[in-house]
Parts: sequence; structure tokens; C-alpha cells
Amino acid sequence: MGNFKGHALPGSFFLIAGLWWTGKFSLCYATRRSKSTGVVATRALQRRLEVIEGTVMLSFSVIGMLAEQFVADGPHLHLYDYAEHRWNHLMNWQHATMYLFFGLAGVVSLVVHTTGVAPLALDRMLLALAFFTEGFLFLYHLHGREMLDVHVHQLLLYAVFGGALTSFLEVFQRGNILLELLRAALSLLQGSWFWQIGFVLYPPSGLVEWDQKDHNSMMFITMCYCWHLAFALLTVSVVYGTVCWVVSSRSKRAQPMEMGLLKASDKDLESEEDM
Amino acid sequence: MGNFKGHALPGSFFLIAGLWWTGKFSLCYATRRSKSTGVVATRALQRRLEVIEGTVMLSFSVIGMLAEQFVADGPHLHLYDYAEHRWNHLMNWQHATMYLFFGLAGVVSLVVHTTGVAPLALDRMLLALAFFTEGFLFLYHLHGREMLDVHVHQLLLYAVFGGALTSFLEVFQRGNILLELLRAALSLLQGSWFWQIGFVLYPPSGLVEWDQKDHNSMMFITMCYCWHLAFALLTVSVVYGTVCWVVSSRSKRAQPMEMGLLKASDKDLESEEDM
Amino acid sequence: MGNFKGHALPGSFFLIAGLWWTGKFSLCYATRRSKSTGVVATRALQRRLEVIEGTVMLSFSVIGMLAEQFVADGPHLHLYDYAEHRWNHLMNWQHATMYLFFGLAGVVSLVVHTTGVAPLALDRMLLALAFFTEGFLFLYHLHGREMLDVHVHQLLLYAVFGGALTSFLEVFQRGNILLELLRAALSLLQGSWFWQIGFVLYPPSGLVEWDQKDHNSMMFITMCYCWHLAFALLTVSVVYGTVCWVVSSRSKRAQPMEMGLLKASDKDLESEEDM
Amino acid sequence: MGNFKGHALPGSFFLIAGLWWTGKFSLCYATRRSKSTGVVATRALQRRLEVIEGTVMLSFSVIGMLAEQFVADGPHLHLYDYAEHRWNHLMNWQHATMYLFFGLAGVVSLVVHTTGVAPLALDRMLLALAFFTEGFLFLYHLHGREMLDVHVHQLLLYAVFGGALTSFLEVFQRGNILLELLRAALSLLQGSWFWQIGFVLYPPSGLVEWDQKDHNSMMFITMCYCWHLAFALLTVSVVYGTVCWVVSSRSKRAQPMEMGLLKASDKDLESEEDM
Repeated sequence: MGNFKGHALPGSFFLIAGLWWTGKFSLCYATRRSKSTGVVATRALQRRLEVIEGTVMLSFSVIGMLAEQFVADGPHLHLYDYAEHRWNHLMNWQHATMYLFFGLAGVVSLVVHTTGVAPLALDRMLLALAFFTEGFLFLYHLHGREMLDVHVHQLLLYAVFGGALTSFLEVFQRGNILLELLRAALSLLQGSWFWQIGFVLYPPSGLVEWDQKDHNSMMFITMCYCWHLAFALLTVSVVYGTVCWVVSSRSKRAQPMEMGLLKASDKDLESEEDM
Repeated sequence: MGNFKGHALPGSFFLIAGLWWTGKFSLCYATRRSKSTGVVATRALQRRLEVIEGTVMLSFSVIGMLAEQFVADGPHLHLYDYAEHRWNHLMNWQHATMYLFFGLAGVVSLVVHTTGVAPLALDRMLLALAFFTEGFLFLYHLHGREMLDVHVHQLLLYAVFGGALTSFLEVFQRGNILLELLRAALSLLQGSWFWQIGFVLYPPSGLVEWDQKDHNSMMFITMCYCWHLAFALLTVSVVYGTVCWVVSSRSKRAQPMEMGLLKASDKDLESEEDM
Repeated sequence: MGNFKGHALPGSFFLIAGLWWTGKFSLCYATRRSKSTGVVATRALQRRLEVIEGTVMLSFSVIGMLAEQFVADGPHLHLYDYAEHRWNHLMNWQHATMYLFFGLAGVVSLVVHTTGVAPLALDRMLLALAFFTEGFLFLYHLHGREMLDVHVHQLLLYAVFGGALTSFLEVFQRGNILLELLRAALSLLQGSWFWQIGFVLYPPSGLVEWDQKDHNSMMFITMCYCWHLAFALLTVSVVYGTVCWVVSSRSKRAQPMEMGLLKASDKDLESEEDM
Repeated sequence: MGNFKGHALPGSFFLIAGLWWTGKFSLCYATRRSKSTGVVATRALQRRLEVIEGTVMLSFSVIGMLAEQFVADGPHLHLYDYAEHRWNHLMNWQHATMYLFFGLAGVVSLVVHTTGVAPLALDRMLLALAFFTEGFLFLYHLHGREMLDVHVHQLLLYAVFGGALTSFLEVFQRGNILLELLRAALSLLQGSWFWQIGFVLYPPSGLVEWDQKDHNSMMFITMCYCWHLAFALLTVSVVYGTVCWVVSSRSKRAQPMEMGLLKASDKDLESEEDM
């Protein structure tokens, strides 16, 4: 799938995942802080969100795996081409393997949040493994390509391994809003960077082709990556702010007696500072 | 021992270790959760398991060291060949050194769990050192080989150093079921990958030899490693599920009055979420 | 800005930041220990200091960005030179990007410490990202330069990434005086090293030029970096000692009855040891 | 000081440091466990040990710095040789810089343990910086040497940076006996490896010279490093066992009534397991 669409598709997936995570974690955090709705309601809500997430992740992964296998020029489950004595469509198999681990993460998330048999943090562990496997396959994926091609994919690895590290830290620091939002931002960064890779390597007709060996392009691309990061941070903060504002205005309407809310959230800050 | 058997043997050891660890940690975790058997019983059981593990680890290591020294073409404890002015069977000495550190880990585990003189976490520290030494020796073991040979051993290092890191983290987070199962999975991965290396580098007669310089083989092997990881995760989850099911059904039979068990395990989940 | 002034300017910024941080954290720590002033006063003081810091950081960053854009030979917001088909003043754009992330850290610090909507540790997270981005851009900034030029910038990266790591650890260990002073020391190191780079690469007229390919110069420069570190540590300890002494003598004057102060600080030490 | 004595000297220093640390930490740990002597006595003892350590470290460093400067072929404080336009005895200056940081660590340790003005963990932080600086200078010290020469020094770096990492972790986990003993073992490893380097690179007359380019020598040396590690671990465990035995037999004699000691140490183990 070395073409524009092959990068736009996963890019869109990761953009959606990043937005979803930002929204979910902001909602959970804001609800926890405002303490207006009962604790039980919050937990039920959170579990329902997790189940939805697991289901969507699983179905996207299955669809992705099937698509990689059964597209027109796909391997159709044949791994080795005995006629020509070579591996059959290795690229598609690699992408299917990436989807496989995200699918596993989806299954485990469902098992963890619908039954009580597995330890809770297992969903983060599997997510970390899925990100790690994605980065691992990309790492050994780049031999013998053009300098710019290698560089843009290497930059991608920062977001991928950053996501793996953040998820792994969440195994030990579950519910840390900063790690959760950082993971969401890195996912947004990954998504928008996939789109950028598509535009750089396979410019849609009408746009000028990039000089793949120009040193200045490399420097520009590196800087461009930082702008994508700034953009991802901005998106996260806008979504976070909106969700917080909505939750807080709702909880105010629900409990008009509780006039000391602002003061309460101020106290919250103080108590955090004490810690 | 650069042959098929020389890779199948350690591979089998690590597969057994991985299965043992999965079973042991699942059992301890499930017993702790069900809370049906008394706490003392659990602890006595756990200590007996640890003593068995230490004994087996120690005896395997001693057997391994003796085998490496006294096989037909072994060094028979001679380190330097004065006749030809060169080191004598360095490979065997290196493998014996690897066994030595696992033997040390076994001795320490026995000392820790039968006497009370050493701090408890010392067994994990020595296990981490044993894994680290294994990886360290492999790392400086690969100069001047074929590309594919180097690559399959490099992939092995991810599992080896992963195991070292996980054991080291357990020094500080003892009893974290996720770290324990991750270590078991990495051990399974290492074991099955040793077998894979044997098949790739020394294909049994009847199989086609691999082209050691083909770039596509490298990419396939990398992907194959991920499948081994997926397989290891699957094995761990199947063993874990079985053990949990057995323990839970037994504890139900033992205490038929305690009908609220499912609810209790549910509460357990909730309390974990609180944390 | 490849000239002497272009290195002296950021160097001065980081020197000021290092001194400010040393003073601020020493003051907060000393006040907390002496417990003479009320807790509320301390917290109000700390918040005021944070707001000042955020404001200054933000304005410096904006001034920096404007300067990089609108100096005589700057890009004036034009990114691409369509006439000559090449990127326009990429260096200035890169430096502006670095300032951008420190500006973001300033904005977030203001939001965190004036309103209560964001989690407290967010200011450290953004500071870590700002340091990381600075190091990241430097890392891909050095292709094709002279050996000595590359080396002095690589040494700089130790201080930059060290600052990023320290800030990131502070997300989880907020208020740890050692991490805070280490960050201040690394900032001082970075500042004085920027000055050193200026002197090495663009020696002011009158000084001998450095031989950029001499191996001995490289070894001297590496050692020199350690001396800058020792100097930074010395500065931090002098400032820390002065602040502690002033706070302690003031609190003594304020509460002459409390004669057991030295003993109290001794107890403090003991209780730390207990932990 | 590129000769046998120049490696034997620091080697002896680190061997002594390793033995001292093993003894000190074992003594503190054993005293804490036996709980026979009062807590105050323990703490006073510990502080006295720390003061002795700081004094010795400081005096050794000062002696080392003076020796490096004023030996027959030393720089005598001249940094630049204006006659020949080159740096003057850079090696000696580098070694003096290494001593400088260990001297700083000694000063800080004295300040921390005699006065109460500095936070307690500062001594570990400075020790970590001293190890890091040592490794950092070695890292940029090895350009253009023979393969074997580079390799034996690279192996040394594992022990040096391992010591830095362990000390840094102790900043956050002060009093963790495992980290303390690991640091002692790494220090012993460093010491004995310095001696080994001396024997390999500057064999005393009568011994055969090593072939600096033989690949097998490299593999042997790597294995040999692991044996040094095993030897260091053995030494630590022997010293630890002896100290524990002496403390326990003394405390038994002091309190013959307390017959349940073995049971108590057993309980101790149990309570650790609970954690």
C-alpha cells in the first residue's frame, strides 16, 4: 500500500483515536472533579466508554486485516509464492500484523471491562505492546529507501514509541490525566503525520514533487513535525477545555445550591499542591 | 554448539520456564483473589513453589555447565590451547558462563526462600542480572557473521533484555501480576525463537536452505518474531484462564455458602479501579 | 544566526532562567522547612512567583519569535522562496519554533496557576516538551558541519535532554527539591555552554581561531564541559546557601522565642532519614 | 598515566570503596533488622560512618588531583603549552577532573551529614554525577585507539554508568539495601576490571603481550568481564553474610532472653512478603 491512500487511512484511524481519547479522559477527569454526579454513575459511564472503545478497536482491526489480505493486489492469505520462490506481498502481511496487535488490545480491553477475571491494567499493557510492535515493524521496514522517505518514517517512530512508553507508564500510574492526554496528543500527532507522509511521498497530481535528496527539505520536515506536535497539543487543549466547561456548567445547573463550586475547584488545586 | 540441537536445547528450557512461571504466578494471583484458602496456606504454597523453582534452576544450570565442558568436542576445563596459541572452545565457555549466572540466581532464590537472612527481592535482582549477562554475551558474540544470522540473534536480544528489565522492575514492584506474566511471555518468546533460529540457520535435511542475504527474508523474519510474540501472549492467556477457572471452581465447591463470589470478584475490580 | 550574538543571547536567557529557578526553589524549600511564616503565605508567594515566571517566559518567547522573523536578514514570515525554489531562512524558522514551545509552556503555566481548570503538573509536562523539542531540533540540525562544531552542539544536548528528563520526572515527583535544583543547574550549564560555543566557533577578533579538526581540542572541550557543570553546581549551592541563610535568620528574628530552631531542623533531618 | 600503575591505582581505590560500601550497608541493614541496639545508636553510628566516608573520599580526591598535577611528567597546573601551541598533558587534566567530582561528592556528603542545611539525598545525587562524569570523560577518550584497548574501556563503562544509575535511583529509594549492594558490587567490578585492563594493555615483563587485533581475544575479554561480575557478587555476599552473622550473634549474647529471634527474623520475611 505504498500510495497516498495507504497513509491517509491509518492516519485517519489515529486522528479519530486521539480525539476519542482526549474526549473520554477529559470527561472522566471533569466528572471526577466536579463530584456532582454520583461515583457509581461515573464508573458505569467509564466502563461503558471502555466497552465501546474495545468493540470499535476490534472491529476496525478485523476490517483492516481483511482489507490488507483481500484487496485486488493483496496476498489472499498466501504467504509464500512457490512459483517465483519469494515471499508474497510482505508489506500487506506486515500491516496485517500491526492490525493484529491492535485487535488483541481490543479483545483484552473487552475482556477486562466486561468480566472481572483479568487485572485491570492489562488493557494498557496490551496497548503498549501494540504500539511497540507497530514501531518495531516500522524500524526494520526502511532499509534501502530514499533519505527523505527514511527520515519521515523515523520521525513517525518518535510518536509511536512515545505512545508505547506512555501506555506502559499508565500500567503503574493508571488514571494519571497527564499521561492519558499525552497519549492522546501523540496519537493525534501520529495521525496527522501519516497524512503529511502521504502528501510528501505521493503528492496528489497538481502539486510539485519533493526533491528526496535535498538537505534543506530534511530540515524543514523536522521542523514541520514540531508544528504538528504543537497542533496536536492545541487540539487536545481545546477539546479538554470544552468538555470541562460543559461538565461544569451542567453540574452547576443540576445543583444550583452549591454556590461554592469555584471555591471548591480552587480547594482541589490546593490539595493537589499539598501532595 | 552451532547446530540445530544447540538452539533447541536452551529453547526448550526457556519454554518450560515460561510455562512454569505463567502457571505459578496465575496460581498465586488466583488464590490471593479468591481468598478461599487461608492466607498462611497460600504463603506456604508459594514458598514451596519458589524452592522447587530454585532447585530445578540450579540443577539445570549445573547440568548445562557440565555438558558444555565435557561433550566430545568441549574444552574439558582447558581455557587456553598452549600448543596452538589460541583460546580453547570459547563458545562452550561462553555458554557455560551464561548457565553460571542462572545457577547463581537459583542458589540465591534457594537461600532467600529457605532462610530469612537475605532481603526478599534479591531473587529478582539476580534473575535480572542473569538475563542481562545472557544478552550482554550475545551482544558481543555476533561480529563477522552473515546478515540474517546477526538479525535473528539481534531479535532474540529484545526478549532477553526485556526479561532483564521486567525482572529489575519486579525488584521494586514485587507481586505485580502484569510484570510477572510479561516476564513469562518474554521467556516463552525467547524459547520459541531459539527453536526458530535453529530451523532458520540449520534447517533439518529435507527443508530448503534460507538465502542468508535476501532482504525479503529479513523482513519476513521480523514479522515472524511478532507472530511468536502473539503466540506467547496467547499461551499465557490460555494457561492463566485455565488456572483461574480451576481455582475459582474449587473454591466454590469448598464454600458453597459463599454465593456472593461473583459479586466479590466484581468488588475486587471496583476497588482496583479506585486505586 | 550563526554568529557570536546568536549564541550569547539564548545563553543569557538560560543563565537567567537557571538563577531564577535556583532562587525560587530554594526560597520555597527554605520557607517550607522553617515553618515560621504561615502555610497560606507560602502558597500565595509560590503562586505569585509562578505567575511572574509564566509571564516573563511568555514575553521573552514572543520577543524571540518576532526578532527571529523580522531581523534584517530574517524570513519576514515567508516560508518558501518561490523565486529561487528553496526554503527561506530555515534557521530562523527553527529558532522561532523553539521559542514557540517555550511560549506554550509559559501560557500553560499561567493558565495552571491563575485558574484551577488544568491539572497542576501540566506546567512541568509542557516544560519537558519544550526542552525535548529544543534538543530534537538541534539533533537534526548538525549534518555536514565540522567535527568540532558538531561536538560542541552534541555536548549541549546532554544539558537539554537532561533538562527534559528532569522536568518529566517532576511531573510525578513534584516538589522534589533535588530534581528542581538539578534542573536549575542544567539550565545554568546550558546557558554558560552557549556562551562557550560562541567563543569557540566565532572567536571575537583578537583571539586565535580554533583548529576545527584537532583531536586534542575535542578532548579539551569535553573536559571543559565538565568544568562548566562543576561551575553550575557551585553557583546553585552558593545561591541555595544564601537563600537558606537569609530565610533562617529572618524567621529567627521574627520568632525570638523559638530557640530550638536548630534542633528542629535537626529533627527534620532525622525524620527525612526515617523515610 | 597510560601504564600499569595508572590503572592499578584507581582500581585499588574502587576495590576499597566497594568493600567499604558492602560492609557499611550490610552493617546498617543487619542492625536495623536485629533491632537489638536502640534506634538512636544506629542512627548515630550511621552518621559517623558517613562522615568518615566523606572525609576519606575528599582526602583521596585531593591527593589524586595533586598527584596528577605534580608528578614528574605532569602539567604542573599549566593548561596550554604556548611554546608548542598545543594542550598540555590533557590526560592528567582529565583524570584530575574525574577526581574533582568525587571530591565534590565528598564535600557534599560531609555538609549533608554534619549540618542539617541540605536535603539528605543530595549525597547520592552528587555521587551519581561523579560516576556519570567519569563515564562521560571515558566515553570521549577512546578515539583512534586499538580495537582491544577501546573494547576493554567500553566494558568498563557498563560498571561506571551502572553505578551512576544505581546512585540516581537511590535518590528516590534511599535505604533500599538491594540498590546499595548493587552499587557496591559494581564498584568492586570497576576496581578489579581496572586491574585487568592494566594486565591486558601493559603486561608486566615476563607475561606474553596480547594481540590487540585478535577477534578471539575480544570474545574472551567479554566473557572475562562476566567472571569479574560473578566474583564481585560473591565478594559482596561473603561480606554481607559475615556482617549479618556477627551482628546477629552479638545481639543474641546481649539479650539472651529473646529466644524467639529466629522466629522474629522469619516474621520479618513474612511482613516483607506482605508488602
